[in-house]
Amino acid sequence: MADKKQFVKEIADFNEDFPQWYTDVVLKTELVDYGPIKGTMVIRPYGYAIWENIQRNLDDRFKKTGHQNAYFPLLIPQSLLQKEAEHVEGFAPEVAMVTVAGGEKLAEPYVVRPTSETIFCTMYSKWINSYRDLPLKLNQWANAVRWEKTTRPFLRTSEFLWQEGHTIHATREESMKETMDMLYLYRDFAREVLAMPTFVGQKSEKEKFAGAEATFGMEAMMLDGKSLQAGTTHHFGQKFSRAYDIQFLDKDGTHKYVWQTSWGVSTRLIGALIMAHGDQRGLVLPPMVAPIQVIVVPVAMHKEGVKEKAQEIVDALLAQGIRAQADFTDNSPGWKFNQWEMKGVPVRLEVGPRDIEQGVATVVTRHNLEKGTISLEGCAEIVEQLLKDVQNAMYEKALAFRNSHVREVHNMQELEQALNDKCFAKVMWDQDPECEALVKEKLQATVRVMLDDEKPFDDVCGICGKKSDNLRVAIIARAY
Amino acid sequence: MADKKQFVKEIADFNEDFPQWYTDVVLKTELVDYGPIKGTMVIRPYGYAIWENIQRNLDDRFKKTGHQNAYFPLLIPQSLLQKEAEHVEGFAPEVAMVTVAGGEKLAEPYVVRPTSETIFCTMYSKWINSYRDLPLKLNQWANAVRWEKTTRPFLRTSEFLWQEGHTIHATREESMKETMDMLYLYRDFAREVLAMPTFVGQKSEKEKFAGAEATFGMEAMMLDGKSLQAGTTHHFGQKFSRAYDIQFLDKDGTHKYVWQTSWGVSTRLIGALIMAHGDQRGLVLPPMVAPIQVIVVPVAMHKEGVKEKAQEIVDALLAQGIRAQADFTDNSPGWKFNQWEMKGVPVRLEVGPRDIEQGVATVVTRHNLEKGTISLEGCAEIVEQLLKDVQNAMYEKALAFRNSHVREVHNMQELEQALNDKCFAKVMWDQDPECEALVKEKLQATVRVMLDDEKPFDDVCGICGKKSDNLRVAIIARAY
Repeated sequence: MADKKQFVKEIADFNEDFPQWYTDVVLKTELVDYGPIKGTMVIRPYGYAIWENIQRNLDDRFKKTGHQNAYFPLLIPQSLLQKEAEHVEGFAPEVAMVTVAGGEKLAEPYVVRPTSETIFCTMYSKWINSYRDLPLKLNQWANAVRWEKTTRPFLRTSEFLWQEGHTIHATREESMKETMDMLYLYRDFAREVLAMPTFVGQKSEKEKFAGAEATFGMEAMMLDGKSLQAGTTHHFGQKFSRAYDIQFLDKDGTHKYVWQTSWGVSTRLIGALIMAHGDQRGLVLPPMVAPIQVIVVPVAMHKEGVKEKAQEIVDALLAQGIRAQADFTDNSPGWKFNQWEMKGVPVRLEVGPRDIEQGVATVVTRHNLEKGTISLEGCAEIVEQLLKDVQNAMYEKALAFRNSHVREVHNMQELEQALNDKCFAKVMWDQDPECEALVKEKLQATVRVMLDDEKPFDDVCGICGKKSDNLRVAIIARAY
Repeated sequence: MADKKQFVKEIADFNEDFPQWYTDVVLKTELVDYGPIKGTMVIRPYGYAIWENIQRNLDDRFKKTGHQNAYFPLLIPQSLLQKEAEHVEGFAPEVAMVTVAGGEKLAEPYVVRPTSETIFCTMYSKWINSYRDLPLKLNQWANAVRWEKTTRPFLRTSEFLWQEGHTIHATREESMKETMDMLYLYRDFAREVLAMPTFVGQKSEKEKFAGAEATFGMEAMMLDGKSLQAGTTHHFGQKFSRAYDIQFLDKDGTHKYVWQTSWGVSTRLIGALIMAHGDQRGLVLPPMVAPIQVIVVPVAMHKEGVKEKAQEIVDALLAQGIRAQADFTDNSPGWKFNQWEMKGVPVRLEVGPRDIEQGVATVVTRHNLEKGTISLEGCAEIVEQLLKDVQNAMYEKALAFRNSHVREVHNMQELEQALNDKCFAKVMWDQDPECEALVKEKLQATVRVMLDDEKPFDDVCGICGKKSDNLRVAIIARAY
């Protein structure tokens, strides 16, 4: 037990210093390290494997819904960025610029992509002629650079990895449908794969993407009660197509501007995962994205047959398509238990001489630290089902936490109390930017999303108290 | 047939203007387009799908041989690049530099990675303590930027996509083994997946990677008789580990510098594919990387049951795991045949009312344009086998071409003749850089690789005619 204390001590207190807990966890579990340039990160194998699992699942979903991958250049001539006025205003302050290349000063600086609307638009304008070319639904997996003042691994980094979808359509109906379809695709992915409930809905005018007509967001609740924007979809209408002249000849013989969307999620999702499921011992990873789903720890490893049996179990699990591994290092079993708990491996199997004799293994599930035994006979099928159960239980646990931390509020006082109690507040909001500014200034909180399909519960704005025809149910929270 | 002429005319003559043929093919088949910045490319969905197939196969091979993926930052402080003298000398002239970020001029410029040895080394130096941490075998899939004067899509672009493996080991034996293992992994991949025979071996001193102790290359013969470097592996010895101070405490209680390798292949492989297999009609893609393996073209599409049958065939092929698609556009069958031939789809199935009546489909294989019929009953299994046969036949064809274009030469005159006959020359070379310079100057050719396991066939250097103890069998060719 000395072991365990030592581990736990290495990680800051979850309840008292959540930000430091996060930093300790991401570094000590070797998900990530700081790069030599401030604000950059090195994604280590354990962290990158989570990203690969996220990628593969999302990529399948994109392809099933008719999207194709492509790759557009990293560097964008500064003049291209400047064609859409709001877009450049939003991104110019945080771009990194290449001014020298091949030993020569460039006539025009090149921007390292902060996002790729401008270059997708440029190519779309060249490629699109007729309604037959539409819709065109492309996605790219890429890096992007935004020079941020305050950075934290995964959550906000100067360079991040992401996917950015860019689609163009013949009608507004189609592009609006795409915008919402992708929002719901993200929500389903978060629920089914990350075991993470989210709120999805429209962002306020102030919070929308630079150049968009409307932005929709997916917000997840972290265990400190703060919200994390985990994905966004944007409807551009014809703003970019007019700025970049993307026209097509429609069936009716007239030229029209295309309707456009973009949408993205990033390595930020890894940060979300950590803060949605972790605990004092470290990471708690949902089986669907865990690099190692099952760790097999031999007990009394040097007794006859123990190592062999452990390897046999791993082989059976691997054959079942389970990401399993045995820990044959020279560390003590106790050290290993703590190590793999810290790393968030969903299921641990312990196997020693007595277990083998009885034809069982001890099983511990990470999310609730419950201990039991399973039969070694047919253990691969049992573990496969167990991983599904853990995945579901983690979602239910996160959902129960969130449901107990959302509070309907009717005025500023209740709003403040809710936030101080680490809750999301549901409030009727008249969409007045002044109310939004007030909440920001007084309570350091923001309107995260406006929910659809929610019954109004007040006929006045919960912030200013005025009557309005624009009332919507808004989620207000402090946020990452 | 008017259709076909039109298509063929759009592509420059394969024999008379191979470079223009290449450009026409990559653009017209929509593999790629030029980006707004000179030397950059947009990889379009059809090209990117090839890259995805290459990636997935290679990635599986890397993982099976104990490598893990990670992601290191794009931007590297200039001072880091400068630690290894030869390395910086080699790369400094072609780097792109970020000098402004977040609206401010940077105190130190950041280099956009041309390759990542310097940043891997920096982190390795931080992470490595003991022999227990070794070997560490990491790989990353990433973009890289090298400012090249002359560029061509896929072959040489300012930005390219690649994988770069960076491994460190406790002993020279291990790192040498890794260097060769990865060379052979590339060779096997080229043969089995790209249907491309290659020559592998050590590069000359002059051609080695900046900072390496030894570089090994994989050279593929293009259909114009020129060589294309399709992959390289580098043995660094301890050159970087000394420059970046990567030491470990060995079992014997002493501190030692690690032994290091790196290796990479890039989107250049797509260029290699095109020039190793293409013909006057356009692309010829090996089934293993073809985005569409089978195109089903309905004939007399609007006759009853034709479209349905075509779709039925596609569904059966998809269920068999074959990448199949039907062309239901309004173009004529002839136009479609030409279109999909140009796009290099390995197998075409044509199905019309008479075929359906007889329970067959017409089948055309792209690599030899042979026509036959297959039974619709069990067609998925038949086509699956056919795709394997096509894959093998394409390799055999490429191998036969290469074998007939390699010539043993014994002096400069024969060497010149071989090159002018669009052949690779095998020559005994004494490894004297002056001979290499002469060949370059007089014949615009270079030593591509030095072969192992080849019997010496002369006791003097084929270039200078002198006796030497350093004679090796070298491949000399003109190259991309």
